[in-house]
Amino acid sequence: MWLFNRPPLEQLKALYGFEPTPAWLEHVQKSSVRFTDGGSGSFISADGLVITNHHVAAGALQKLSDAAHNYLRDGFYAKGRSEEVRCLDLELNVLMDIEDVTARIKQAVASGMSADAAFAAHRAAIAGIEKESSERTGLRSEVVTLDRGGAYHLYRYKRYTDVRLVFAPEQQAAFFGGDPDNFEYPRYDFDIALFRVYEAGRPAKIEHYLTWNRTGLKDGELVFVSGHPSSTQRLLTLAELEYERDVLVPKVLADLNQLEVALIAFSARGAENARRARVELFGVQNARKRADGVLAGLLDPALLKAKQTEEDTLQAAAAKTPDGDAAWRQIADAQRIISRQAVRANLLAAYNYHTAFTYPVSSTLLDLARKLYRVPAERARPDGERLAEYRDSARPELELALFSAEPTYDDLEQLQLTHWLTMLATELGPDDPAVQIALGGQSPPARAAQLVQHTRLKDVAFRRQLYAMTPDQIARVDDSYVALVRDLDDASRAVRRSIEQQLDVKERADARIARLRHARDSAQVSPDAAAFTLRLAFGTVKGYEENGQPVAPFTTLAGLYQRSADHDNKVPFDLPPRWAAARTALDLGTPLNFVTTCDIVGGNSGSPTINRDAEFVGIIFDLNIQSLILDYAYTEVQSRSVSVDARAILEALRKVYGADALVQEILTGHLS
Amino acid sequence: MWLFNRPPLEQLKALYGFEPTPAWLEHVQKSSVRFTDGGSGSFISADGLVITNHHVAAGALQKLSDAAHNYLRDGFYAKGRSEEVRCLDLELNVLMDIEDVTARIKQAVASGMSADAAFAAHRAAIAGIEKESSERTGLRSEVVTLDRGGAYHLYRYKRYTDVRLVFAPEQQAAFFGGDPDNFEYPRYDFDIALFRVYEAGRPAKIEHYLTWNRTGLKDGELVFVSGHPSSTQRLLTLAELEYERDVLVPKVLADLNQLEVALIAFSARGAENARRARVELFGVQNARKRADGVLAGLLDPALLKAKQTEEDTLQAAAAKTPDGDAAWRQIADAQRIISRQAVRANLLAAYNYHTAFTYPVSSTLLDLARKLYRVPAERARPDGERLAEYRDSARPELELALFSAEPTYDDLEQLQLTHWLTMLATELGPDDPAVQIALGGQSPPARAAQLVQHTRLKDVAFRRQLYAMTPDQIARVDDSYVALVRDLDDASRAVRRSIEQQLDVKERADARIARLRHARDSAQVSPDAAAFTLRLAFGTVKGYEENGQPVAPFTTLAGLYQRSADHDNKVPFDLPPRWAAARTALDLGTPLNFVTTCDIVGGNSGSPTINRDAEFVGIIFDLNIQSLILDYAYTEVQSRSVSVDARAILEALRKVYGADALVQEILTGHLS
Repeated sequence: MWLFNRPPLEQLKALYGFEPTPAWLEHVQKSSVRFTDGGSGSFISADGLVITNHHVAAGALQKLSDAAHNYLRDGFYAKGRSEEVRCLDLELNVLMDIEDVTARIKQAVASGMSADAAFAAHRAAIAGIEKESSERTGLRSEVVTLDRGGAYHLYRYKRYTDVRLVFAPEQQAAFFGGDPDNFEYPRYDFDIALFRVYEAGRPAKIEHYLTWNRTGLKDGELVFVSGHPSSTQRLLTLAELEYERDVLVPKVLADLNQLEVALIAFSARGAENARRARVELFGVQNARKRADGVLAGLLDPALLKAKQTEEDTLQAAAAKTPDGDAAWRQIADAQRIISRQAVRANLLAAYNYHTAFTYPVSSTLLDLARKLYRVPAERARPDGERLAEYRDSARPELELALFSAEPTYDDLEQLQLTHWLTMLATELGPDDPAVQIALGGQSPPARAAQLVQHTRLKDVAFRRQLYAMTPDQIARVDDSYVALVRDLDDASRAVRRSIEQQLDVKERADARIARLRHARDSAQVSPDAAAFTLRLAFGTVKGYEENGQPVAPFTTLAGLYQRSADHDNKVPFDLPPRWAAARTALDLGTPLNFVTTCDIVGGNSGSPTINRDAEFVGIIFDLNIQSLILDYAYTEVQSRSVSVDARAILEALRKVYGADALVQEILTGHLS
Repeated sequence: MWLFNRPPLEQLKALYGFEPTPAWLEHVQKSSVRFTDGGSGSFISADGLVITNHHVAAGALQKLSDAAHNYLRDGFYAKGRSEEVRCLDLELNVLMDIEDVTARIKQAVASGMSADAAFAAHRAAIAGIEKESSERTGLRSEVVTLDRGGAYHLYRYKRYTDVRLVFAPEQQAAFFGGDPDNFEYPRYDFDIALFRVYEAGRPAKIEHYLTWNRTGLKDGELVFVSGHPSSTQRLLTLAELEYERDVLVPKVLADLNQLEVALIAFSARGAENARRARVELFGVQNARKRADGVLAGLLDPALLKAKQTEEDTLQAAAAKTPDGDAAWRQIADAQRIISRQAVRANLLAAYNYHTAFTYPVSSTLLDLARKLYRVPAERARPDGERLAEYRDSARPELELALFSAEPTYDDLEQLQLTHWLTMLATELGPDDPAVQIALGGQSPPARAAQLVQHTRLKDVAFRRQLYAMTPDQIARVDDSYVALVRDLDDASRAVRRSIEQQLDVKERADARIARLRHARDSAQVSPDAAAFTLRLAFGTVKGYEENGQPVAPFTTLAGLYQRSADHDNKVPFDLPPRWAAARTALDLGTPLNFVTTCDIVGGNSGSPTINRDAEFVGIIFDLNIQSLILDYAYTEVQSRSVSVDARAILEALRKVYGADALVQEILTGHLS
């Protein structure tokens, strides 16, 4: 997961004799698109056409759907531009440039500062840099921490906020095989969706977009993935890794299990329930499966032993420096404090300091209430002293979230709140003052019902009123959710602050370890992925062995029909009617999915897979199950990323969906 | 939940003017049947015909099924006696008499004994009484602790071990509405199954059986339920209740959630997987829903407040005795020790000291391995010093379990083991020596696969070999499961012993509180249900209010068809084909299910509902969701037990299943 401003030139030359030029890198970078709700995509025409995964588009599809139109399940196709429908609060970003601001940030924190003062100075420095940049350039500006605190880069993005839905297949085509096949390979999924970005009411004019490959990808070929991985944890210390194994992942898993069970039961009550819960259930199941795989990996003693060996080597090097192993001790101390408060922070502050494993949110509306309630108080503070999400530079995303017209449902709200209240009461204990406030003297289900009945937060106009209030005004608002977040605000802020301070301590200690690691390793070390920043991965198309059997690099359309037949076309192996009907028309030898050794994690979903000529050859949509431990350690023995083949995309758009105009645009690079 | 030897004569007379005679009580008692795998039933013909629930029969149906015959899903009907098929390791019991042995047990424990000595003396006294009784009478003899240690009664049962399956409907008829309707009312379930007990190869001759009511049950009518509730916790102290709320139930729920998620994912992979996992998934979902409801109830501050008030009153009375509140302090101290070890005991010793909330077992075969491994060592000890399940009086059940020919499946075994190893590692921590033994240096899934590959325990003949071994011989057996339970045996016995000692301390303290409670309450107090002993409940047919709407006491066959139509006949509201076809033939006004105020809990499933004349009017199969807290406190405001109406049973047997011979036997009381 290489940085575009530190590309792995030596490795590419040595291994593949390939030397990407600066122009190649710039073209790929600017053809790559970030979905700000967590995913990747790419431009594939000069007229703003963007391709991503159906599952990246799921949130947008759900928000456009209602009881009468289930675009998420049934798909969507705009036959002409006038039918392209604008998405609710969807924002796409394109990375325009990267600036190293390490020196400016480090300067701000004087040695000898108290933890408190260092934290404040650090936060103010970041806020200042972001604000200055966004005001000067008009670009979305984010300071990103790299090497766990070893470096700070300022990323500037062009924003697209008028994003329209062009095409999505049926969810059953995108997620054929359902939960049983999820994270498995061989797979047979048509996991794509198409959007178009607009500017000033017209399709945006795009300079950098990927041309479609026409010759076909081959086994063993060098490929690249350009996308936005969420984060990896490969440079954690042993103490941090033990925390993930013993506290974080088991707690997250327990939370996800409980929510999944509740959502499945809710969905079974009827078709409309199932539609309402579909996106959340899908997300929860995906996260649960990942947590499951990660926990199994972390419980393998071999992983921790390897980490211990690496740490012994680094500490031997550290012993020769004046600080010795102080960095590791500081991290372990900070981690102990975090461990004690982690569950509390997640539940009470919805504070997801660990982006790879976020707890399920409490409820859609409670999350909004918490964000809204703090607006007046945060606005009154200097920019550099605010919580990160209230900085001036972050205002557009904040407003996008607060004023979303996304539908919410009382019954689903009640389920989420009951779940959250139950986790809160059992994890923190019923005697905790915050729990007593949250429960208000009732059982979790009774309290949840009461909260849902006495709020107006569903109404966007009411949210806009709250947003405009002064601290005094919002303190007097009579609304069940607002009252709840108000009463919990002190406790919520306190635990977040406590964790953030310790993270800050860890970041500075981590930076020292990163320096040792760089000094030791003459080869370049790619930093942990972080904050959905753009990264370039490379690898080859390559099968693997599983239980002694070879697994081929490509699957075909024929395999899809065969797998469905093997399961009597029963859920979740049923073919959507259009696919069943198109069978005889299709060239069944067309490659459908393929695997590569490219190193990806969550957030890479929708990333283009490209060849040496920067042509689009496929689109990433999954990992195999053997890859779930990639968050913590890279291995290419069995770990594989899975893409939809560019050839299947054309074949299906033509013959299953009759979307010839889209095929034309993709092949010519222009709207006709 | 009254004892048959302490019937609530005064209450019945005062409330209903009804005075059951000794003959009435004996008749009902001896018509009642206990399923030793946890359920109830009753005799309904002189030729050994027994009626129970489909879900009580589920284990037996599953054990008779294979990939080609899915009796659990599709049902079964023996058209003649020769088609009645013998069940694997199913044992039915009938309670013949009860003897109060309180004095004999209390005598054995001298005051001033150490906890250790008291525990041993207590255990030896119980074993002695059971052994003497079973040898003298040939009846299954069990000493039961009542009033949490206030009294000890010896229950003697006649055993039936040749039990044959006669009839079962489709699971979809029995569990119509599936998980969404589970614990809900109104309901539309035909949850019955019929067995016949045999002796010496012929249908057993039964003196006491229930005659079938022909006039029809009415709203408001007095009814009784005679069955075998598992246990209730209504006389817990506050300290014990807090433990259930803060430790036991949340831990059980987390375990159940994780297993449910794994079983659902497993089942989704194909029809045969679903068949294999069906009984376990059903059981896990049922238990999870119960734990969910109980947790919500326990988190309601009102429940604990009521307990506090009751405890204050009792303690005020206790203050006037020489011991003061010592009993409560002893219980709280013992509870603290138990709390720290409870999860360890459940996971490592599979020691279910709390019968209302048992953890899922580790795996079917590992459970067998643990039981088998201890046989040689326990056999070498005097009867009174053995673990309870190895006493001579318990040998028949032990052998039934050990040599069961119930099929096991490697893939399901692996799932169960992975689940157990993961819970073990995350709950006890990877550094625990027992966890290191269990994992053997591998991740949970890798270790589970290895264990399953290297065991011969599926083979009943191998189990018989192990059973016959000496301690020295079994110590040298080369089998992955046997080796694992051997290496964990010390740790497993230690934690069980520690918990059992504390339970013993609690039992004696509880006995003192029970005396205070009896002295205070001039009215009789019914003891907590315990150990699936026969109890008599009474109440009336009565609707209730929910969200301000009246809920009628009866549903009808018409309602079943309506509910299916309301859901487009979609899973889980689909009609079995026989039911769809029979619609026009049926009298749709026939009552299908009804609710009463009778006080029941788990274990009562399959209990007959009878009228004053001891006629069969229905069969208990569920509670409504408002009853889940009944384990901890009785209330009749909304709590209702749900029965299948006797009229629907006859109507469906005739017109849906064409089982006229069965109808004839039921109405005449004899095989024709």
